[in-house]
Amino acid sequence: MTVKSVVPCLLLATVLGALFVSAYGKPGAQKLKDTDRTAIMAVLTTQQNDWNQGDIRGFMAGYWNSSELTFAGTRGFTRGWQPVLARYEKSYADKAAMGTLDFQELELRSLGPDAALVLGKWHLKRQAGDVGGIFTLVFQRFPEGWRIVHDHTTQSPAETK
Amino acid sequence: MTVKSVVPCLLLATVLGALFVSAYGKPGAQKLKDTDRTAIMAVLTTQQNDWNQGDIRGFMAGYWNSSELTFAGTRGFTRGWQPVLARYEKSYADKAAMGTLDFQELELRSLGPDAALVLGKWHLKRQAGDVGGIFTLVFQRFPEGWRIVHDHTTQSPAETK
Repeated sequence: MTVKSVVPCLLLATVLGALFVSAYGKPGAQKLKDTDRTAIMAVLTTQQNDWNQGDIRGFMAGYWNSSELTFAGTRGFTRGWQPVLARYEKSYADKAAMGTLDFQELELRSLGPDAALVLGKWHLKRQAGDVGGIFTLVFQRFPEGWRIVHDHTTQSPAETK
Repeated sequence: MTVKSVVPCLLLATVLGALFVSAYGKPGAQKLKDTDRTAIMAVLTTQQNDWNQGDIRGFMAGYWNSSELTFAGTRGFTRGWQPVLARYEKSYADKAAMGTLDFQELELRSLGPDAALVLGKWHLKRQAGDVGGIFTLVFQRFPEGWRIVHDHTTQSPAETK
């Protein structure tokens, strides 16, 4: 190798190294890839649309269909896809109780190649009185797509009527 | 390559493939490595000990020291290490208000090579009345160790006095 061939090689290595550090060197601040962001947003939009059509099972398709799915609510943890579905069906017996769901101020963060954190606010517009609050969703990538593996949802006292 | 050399090669590939699938083939159900589990548990134990010595800043060392740290509480989101510290200092003005902290029923799950989910219950034993509830912690691995990058904590209404 001549000096002339080593210099561009070092330059290239420096540039690639800098790119690598900017992409992976700041854990906790990794940017979610656009394709993953789009896929996760599609899951949330489908959930919102299904909910607003009174389709709780459609809404539940956004969750990991597993006995290890977890939901953290006001009354503690619910474990497993079926019990989470049962909880929703009990809390929202009909379309009037379900109201119109709106997700707001969504923030999507990468947690690595196959996991993401989604924070946001939820609002239910209902004749019986609006409710809302905040949520933490943990998504993981599965062969069938991105799914919620853990949901922590809090109802805001101020919004409770 | 002879048939005799292909057979052990295929066998080895099958065994390695099976090992790979068992380790990585079930996203959402990956087991956290023992060394990571120990490191994360050490962060939580240190937090508990520091809290019980009235040392909120020590407790805060378990959190990612970043303006991007997020805390989801009853009154919405708090963003940034300094505002989260300020929130704790306001809510727990002295050692009596801080009480004795106990983490219970901790569940640690892997979210990939550098991220983990921790679910659990918290309880504060206090003269003025006990409080408690549940939490969701998202940990990420940094050069300095595992840190909480997001905390969603809910106070249980039943435990409020």
